[in-house]
Amino acid sequence: MSVDLESLGLIDDHPAEECAVVGIYAPGHDVSRLAYFALYALQHRGQESSGIAVSDGKQFECYKDMGLVSQVFNPEILQRLQGHLAVAHNRYSTTGSSRIDNAQPLLLKSHLGQLALAHNGNLTNYLELKNELLARGLTFATTSDTEVVLKIFSLAEGDTLAQKLVNTVRRLFGSYSVVLATPDALMGFRDPLGVRPLCIGRIGGERKDDGWVLASESCGLATIGATFVREVRPGEAVIIDRGGLQSVQAAELEHHALCLFEYVYFARPDTLINGDNIYNARYRMGQHLAREYPADADLVIAVPDSGVPAAMGYADESGIPYGEGLIKNRYIARTFIQPDDNMRKVGIKLKFNPLTHNIHGKRIVMIDDSIVRGNTTRALVKLLKDEGVKEVHVRITSPPMIHPCFYGVDTATHEQLIAHKYEVPDICKYIGADSLGYLSLDALMEDTGYPRQNLCRACFTGQYPGESAGREQPLRTCQGAAAT
Amino acid sequence: MSVDLESLGLIDDHPAEECAVVGIYAPGHDVSRLAYFALYALQHRGQESSGIAVSDGKQFECYKDMGLVSQVFNPEILQRLQGHLAVAHNRYSTTGSSRIDNAQPLLLKSHLGQLALAHNGNLTNYLELKNELLARGLTFATTSDTEVVLKIFSLAEGDTLAQKLVNTVRRLFGSYSVVLATPDALMGFRDPLGVRPLCIGRIGGERKDDGWVLASESCGLATIGATFVREVRPGEAVIIDRGGLQSVQAAELEHHALCLFEYVYFARPDTLINGDNIYNARYRMGQHLAREYPADADLVIAVPDSGVPAAMGYADESGIPYGEGLIKNRYIARTFIQPDDNMRKVGIKLKFNPLTHNIHGKRIVMIDDSIVRGNTTRALVKLLKDEGVKEVHVRITSPPMIHPCFYGVDTATHEQLIAHKYEVPDICKYIGADSLGYLSLDALMEDTGYPRQNLCRACFTGQYPGESAGREQPLRTCQGAAAT
Amino acid sequence: MSVDLESLGLIDDHPAEECAVVGIYAPGHDVSRLAYFALYALQHRGQESSGIAVSDGKQFECYKDMGLVSQVFNPEILQRLQGHLAVAHNRYSTTGSSRIDNAQPLLLKSHLGQLALAHNGNLTNYLELKNELLARGLTFATTSDTEVVLKIFSLAEGDTLAQKLVNTVRRLFGSYSVVLATPDALMGFRDPLGVRPLCIGRIGGERKDDGWVLASESCGLATIGATFVREVRPGEAVIIDRGGLQSVQAAELEHHALCLFEYVYFARPDTLINGDNIYNARYRMGQHLAREYPADADLVIAVPDSGVPAAMGYADESGIPYGEGLIKNRYIARTFIQPDDNMRKVGIKLKFNPLTHNIHGKRIVMIDDSIVRGNTTRALVKLLKDEGVKEVHVRITSPPMIHPCFYGVDTATHEQLIAHKYEVPDICKYIGADSLGYLSLDALMEDTGYPRQNLCRACFTGQYPGESAGREQPLRTCQGAAAT
Amino acid sequence: MSVDLESLGLIDDHPAEECAVVGIYAPGHDVSRLAYFALYALQHRGQESSGIAVSDGKQFECYKDMGLVSQVFNPEILQRLQGHLAVAHNRYSTTGSSRIDNAQPLLLKSHLGQLALAHNGNLTNYLELKNELLARGLTFATTSDTEVVLKIFSLAEGDTLAQKLVNTVRRLFGSYSVVLATPDALMGFRDPLGVRPLCIGRIGGERKDDGWVLASESCGLATIGATFVREVRPGEAVIIDRGGLQSVQAAELEHHALCLFEYVYFARPDTLINGDNIYNARYRMGQHLAREYPADADLVIAVPDSGVPAAMGYADESGIPYGEGLIKNRYIARTFIQPDDNMRKVGIKLKFNPLTHNIHGKRIVMIDDSIVRGNTTRALVKLLKDEGVKEVHVRITSPPMIHPCFYGVDTATHEQLIAHKYEVPDICKYIGADSLGYLSLDALMEDTGYPRQNLCRACFTGQYPGESAGREQPLRTCQGAAAT
Repeated sequence: MSVDLESLGLIDDHPAEECAVVGIYAPGHDVSRLAYFALYALQHRGQESSGIAVSDGKQFECYKDMGLVSQVFNPEILQRLQGHLAVAHNRYSTTGSSRIDNAQPLLLKSHLGQLALAHNGNLTNYLELKNELLARGLTFATTSDTEVVLKIFSLAEGDTLAQKLVNTVRRLFGSYSVVLATPDALMGFRDPLGVRPLCIGRIGGERKDDGWVLASESCGLATIGATFVREVRPGEAVIIDRGGLQSVQAAELEHHALCLFEYVYFARPDTLINGDNIYNARYRMGQHLAREYPADADLVIAVPDSGVPAAMGYADESGIPYGEGLIKNRYIARTFIQPDDNMRKVGIKLKFNPLTHNIHGKRIVMIDDSIVRGNTTRALVKLLKDEGVKEVHVRITSPPMIHPCFYGVDTATHEQLIAHKYEVPDICKYIGADSLGYLSLDALMEDTGYPRQNLCRACFTGQYPGESAGREQPLRTCQGAAAT
Repeated sequence: MSVDLESLGLIDDHPAEECAVVGIYAPGHDVSRLAYFALYALQHRGQESSGIAVSDGKQFECYKDMGLVSQVFNPEILQRLQGHLAVAHNRYSTTGSSRIDNAQPLLLKSHLGQLALAHNGNLTNYLELKNELLARGLTFATTSDTEVVLKIFSLAEGDTLAQKLVNTVRRLFGSYSVVLATPDALMGFRDPLGVRPLCIGRIGGERKDDGWVLASESCGLATIGATFVREVRPGEAVIIDRGGLQSVQAAELEHHALCLFEYVYFARPDTLINGDNIYNARYRMGQHLAREYPADADLVIAVPDSGVPAAMGYADESGIPYGEGLIKNRYIARTFIQPDDNMRKVGIKLKFNPLTHNIHGKRIVMIDDSIVRGNTTRALVKLLKDEGVKEVHVRITSPPMIHPCFYGVDTATHEQLIAHKYEVPDICKYIGADSLGYLSLDALMEDTGYPRQNLCRACFTGQYPGESAGREQPLRTCQGAAAT
Repeated sequence: MSVDLESLGLIDDHPAEECAVVGIYAPGHDVSRLAYFALYALQHRGQESSGIAVSDGKQFECYKDMGLVSQVFNPEILQRLQGHLAVAHNRYSTTGSSRIDNAQPLLLKSHLGQLALAHNGNLTNYLELKNELLARGLTFATTSDTEVVLKIFSLAEGDTLAQKLVNTVRRLFGSYSVVLATPDALMGFRDPLGVRPLCIGRIGGERKDDGWVLASESCGLATIGATFVREVRPGEAVIIDRGGLQSVQAAELEHHALCLFEYVYFARPDTLINGDNIYNARYRMGQHLAREYPADADLVIAVPDSGVPAAMGYADESGIPYGEGLIKNRYIARTFIQPDDNMRKVGIKLKFNPLTHNIHGKRIVMIDDSIVRGNTTRALVKLLKDEGVKEVHVRITSPPMIHPCFYGVDTATHEQLIAHKYEVPDICKYIGADSLGYLSLDALMEDTGYPRQNLCRACFTGQYPGESAGREQPLRTCQGAAAT
Repeated sequence: MSVDLESLGLIDDHPAEECAVVGIYAPGHDVSRLAYFALYALQHRGQESSGIAVSDGKQFECYKDMGLVSQVFNPEILQRLQGHLAVAHNRYSTTGSSRIDNAQPLLLKSHLGQLALAHNGNLTNYLELKNELLARGLTFATTSDTEVVLKIFSLAEGDTLAQKLVNTVRRLFGSYSVVLATPDALMGFRDPLGVRPLCIGRIGGERKDDGWVLASESCGLATIGATFVREVRPGEAVIIDRGGLQSVQAAELEHHALCLFEYVYFARPDTLINGDNIYNARYRMGQHLAREYPADADLVIAVPDSGVPAAMGYADESGIPYGEGLIKNRYIARTFIQPDDNMRKVGIKLKFNPLTHNIHGKRIVMIDDSIVRGNTTRALVKLLKDEGVKEVHVRITSPPMIHPCFYGVDTATHEQLIAHKYEVPDICKYIGADSLGYLSLDALMEDTGYPRQNLCRACFTGQYPGESAGREQPLRTCQGAAAT
């Protein structure tokens, strides 16, 4: 078991640590089933564990387990989850801390009664808040920051849920798109920077007034027949109960900081942000790359799946034909079986296989979304060259990732980031490519179509949003300001 | 639970009932691990159950269970499967008869000692052989035809394994690509028509003489670093033991009948048949479709994944741009949760979601590989139109499927085949398309690059290979001839 | 499924709701294995769930699941639990609230670091404490009173563990024998009334100074080779760390209230309390019964297993021969299969079968430990009579149970207690016996050999220990006094 | 893990390899539920795996798994087993060959249709029959002799089930109590020697004509409210269908050979054989032992549970008081956790704990049913002496076991049998007892009340029943004779 999976390029080299959250308030509907299918559509945001908590107005029943949503639930389990309000969650797999104890939604009894919460993001003042709560005598049953959010809310001042939400948002720094509920009210809120997405949909018949859905991405609405209404605004909290939807702006910042990697890698291509789908943004990145880093080549291929729209954009812009050169194993699931020493050279083939006839003897442009550690890219270049590809020109739809992320994207440490240690020419050499081009930050921001001042670019620039003093708590001052 | 999944287009509308077989003979290698990764690469041929039997030269140890190969095995289980010879299998899910009892490989003790067998295909004289064996006093522990194959072999006349293989092949009618083993010899054979594929690879170091692999498709070789040697010939049996590989031609037919659907749908794009990969054949089908059924349209899209290369071929040939219009849920797994009545309209969105911005207001050519019952296609056309697509021109990379298959492809009954009941214009109307074009049989056969006289076209023409007298036992006379 | 299990006598008619707690501090020993075998010996105190938390000095690793200890653990799991300090628990099955969430030990992070706790007993001021904690902003992840104990401890004033323990014991009313630990110190304490048992043992070599064990009963020490040292005193707390064992008396009451049912039913016969084993006490109860309620009979039999020593005592005292008349199914485990209507008459035979030849035509004295609802006794009397027993004289080794228990013994409600509703002659009639004798309270207390002023007799007399004002919080005044 | 469990006395030192079989034919009854509770009552004859096959008249549905019957089945599973005919089985745990593949009932498809079979016993000509069947071309899916029985039956000559049964019994040598069924007929048969028990009961209302039950012991009838009718005779086969019960005597031997160990250890005390219960026979053995091997002692104790009735008999006969001295852990289940080196001395305490106060300073007679390897007895004697017992006089209710059993009792090999290697005085020394007495064979046979010429005493005398020539196939001649 001494094989270094990383050096084989088999450790996923994408940024990680996303989750999906879902909230449903829909009397008269089978909310556990709706939550199930919404989680199903959002499975790409987390494959480690899945859970649904349903309230019948009086109390929650919750079921969660390790695995894909289709593995965790069966008809008998869903049958037991009866009610009109649901909170649901898919969790991303992270090494080490992946335990059922940390699976969500989290259910706690507080003086407000039962509370259920599902969270996507990362609190930058997690430890500080936890220590403060510990010092006040509170105890923690889990090691996740979800429990911190839940406790901060339960302790928040205010006579109404709305006031409590305002005071919750003002205490939490970092990124958080949260779905929270009492047995008879569904709430959702986003951090003032709006790092992670969260959107609102309506569900029902002709007049679409039967109920409401909150979901991490709009593709979760479409799958269950809900209509997209709008995104939850950064710093906004919404409360949905029998009286309808009520909104409160807990904090207002001049600039937001939507994570650029939602565009680059996380979100599903059919998801809408700011009125445009992700697919189009990726296509534009490819076009832009073709202008910034043209290549004298015979074929443009993508590293599937995220690279495909950009590869098509690059091809259309450059006039170089687009084609498929790598087949991705559709059934690649987490496997605990390690290849043995004899398979060292095979490595990357477990995940990608070359279409030799399409690529042999050609000069290839290979489009990928990012390079984190560099090993997967190196393995792919070698794979192509071993199949007789003459030249491999690597084009990346994001700038070099130089700084780690504090808002929930597990990009590895400084030391692991290849672009932190090496300049582009050295990276090009390391991965064995004939040329290497990273999309410029300006281009990337333009391609998203999102207001550029509202995008988080910290991992590329080291300029953490709202940072004024030290890197340790980059959001503090900014959020402190927001709270006044 | 009264929702008709079929009418929602959610019952997979592809032909079904494929399996993957793997055999490995490699002293000094970790054969259970090799078998595991070969099954992993062949997962697309069967997701219901998975199994590996390993012999240490004296006896087999076997492990099999329901689920994907990555779910069935873990390091502890593989550790227990020690030896130098493996037989492995992935089974396709078929409604009703899917039971662990029928999972493969099948292990039996016979007068030849232990035998392990994995089978892909369908015996057309299964019942006749089973009744004959029952009448001889044999008993059956399973309901699969695998047990019939195993018993016919164990009873076959002959002093050597080679003779027994010849006499086995001569008794079995229908389609079968089989991997079979005694504790110290690995065997493989294909039916005389060669309906299902089976190929041979070598594994090992520089000189590649360490061991041998048999696998349903060449992509199973590539993944474990084995080198493709050749296909097993129709009617050929091979025996691999410490003496190397020995071949015997059990039956020789003038014409073979490789299943055209391996090209159209089953095989993985990077799999090689007859020296060319499947991807290229599909691309040519798309080009051909563009010539046979041009369309006045703005965009060519594919029904992913099998339709992609053909859509690119259609686009390149027609000059109409290729683009993505449908996103396939990558995590769509067997779910036992049924959508409720309120989700009726949602249906197909669990599997495919539209990229509205790419397709809205456009005239679209949608490429798919086949239409079996018609419901999925109808649901997809409706989905597109609901998103504002102006025209949908459906193009299919195979001819109308009019006849059921007797060789293992579960194409549904006559009554269920929409092309059996309706003419093309009526089908076009039923699916709601603006035009519908099926690739001609001539074109399809040409596009494969395979000798046309050696392709099975029965489901399109009703001309069952080797058939002379009755449809009931179409292969009998032919094979009887072969056996003389 | 409409059969009334209770009326069949199949609902266990013993008092219920006991648990087993174990704590081990033994550097150099395999503490998870020691904890496992101690739980094994204490399985009679709880069969619903089992758990072990082990600390290596820095943090706890915990594993718990539903089932018997032999079902919950396997060598791999124990292997993962490495350290020198263990807290372990067996939980009794109670209808409804039996969930994995409530399984113990409970692990929480507090400002003192990680805490692990296992609890046997019942807090009478549970709700009051929980509401107080909720009002202070604390939240609860479980519905068990264990979490309340853990939080009260973590909030207790004091600079040392000893002070905190004192202040914890003073806040908790009711019954509790608790094992508690930080990653490097093992603690144990008993309520000031001493309702549930808890004892101390030493483990190790010749000089027995290798380590310490805390266990609910002395039989848990014997099984792992530990030497019984003494019982933890009512109101005492002990702290065991590298400095050895330190004791602090948190509260001192004039009178204690050890549960009489530990003698009557709960404890294992070989367990020592106050220097004598339980077996002998039960034997004396039988002798006493023979004097208080002699019978003109041919044979004394027991309802196995708890009735056996008393039956032997009755026989020896009365001169009537002792014999076995009822065989208990040794494999009777929780079964979820209900007998159908046709089995109504069978009922009790699932659990007990008569030795017809031993009892037919005889006049029988049948000894049991208690009558709660009365149905099991009625079913047993009928069973004996159906087998031709001429007379059945029922003798019970405890007085009529008239009042419910507030200290953790689930004796059913007032309404369900047959002795609450009926006088002895009516009960005798109801159960169909020829005579019925309950051991007098005086006799029972004498037979235990335990100081009579220190025994809890509340369920027989309604005099709750320490009660001065109202029944609602019977222990309050008393404990308040203790705390001053 | 290097601890020798055997030397600790923890390997069960009783003879082993029994099973329970059940057959039910009862239209209008819930036969799967009846079978479940009958297996439940017969759990003492096998705890490794459990299974029930139910036929609705057309085909069998079968469910079986590893574990106790209460672990294997739940209401949903029983619900799926609908029909009027059941075959059911509990299997004993044997090291090595314990696999789900060998779990029973076994279901096979033959030319007679589906057959289901459950078997208790051991074929002495298993290998010969298997080789014969292999040579005829049959194959085997399991390694159990059950499959041989099933195949011999399916191949048996005869136009009727009765004829086939006769010809089956004549082919099978050794011990076998079999329940067998086609989808509409239930059959049962016993070997001509009658080594293992099998009895017939009627189930139903007043007139008890609703249905029939076959069960290994009568206690399986009582539990489900069935009335004992009679035992199946040695060499008899019964066929139960809508026409009622039909009997055929397949073979008739002058002398039978009921296993003496059914009396000594296997059967439940309340089971009836030959009109008397097992309890009484064991009591008489104790009385007899007291006469044959009196002891000057203060107390008679039993090794629970099987030794209890004999200990009471010994006490009554000798006038020495009977008492309990050893408590057996009621929850001792198969544990896969091995005690570590520090627990070496503990060993036997996992299973038995001494009642020190009862035994300290006394001279004890300890009654057990048998000594196989001797380690458990030695550990028990040491345990008692360590608790201060002055003298331990071991009395065994069977003669020295000198020869292995060929009829299904796993008594260990010659080499392992302590009485094969040593004389009684040496055994006494080895186990550390002050005296040792084995019940004489004459006495044992007399105590059973069974005709002495019909009891198998082979393990005591080496005289295998029916043996004339060689030990290798002891039953052959005899049965050959029977078959003429």
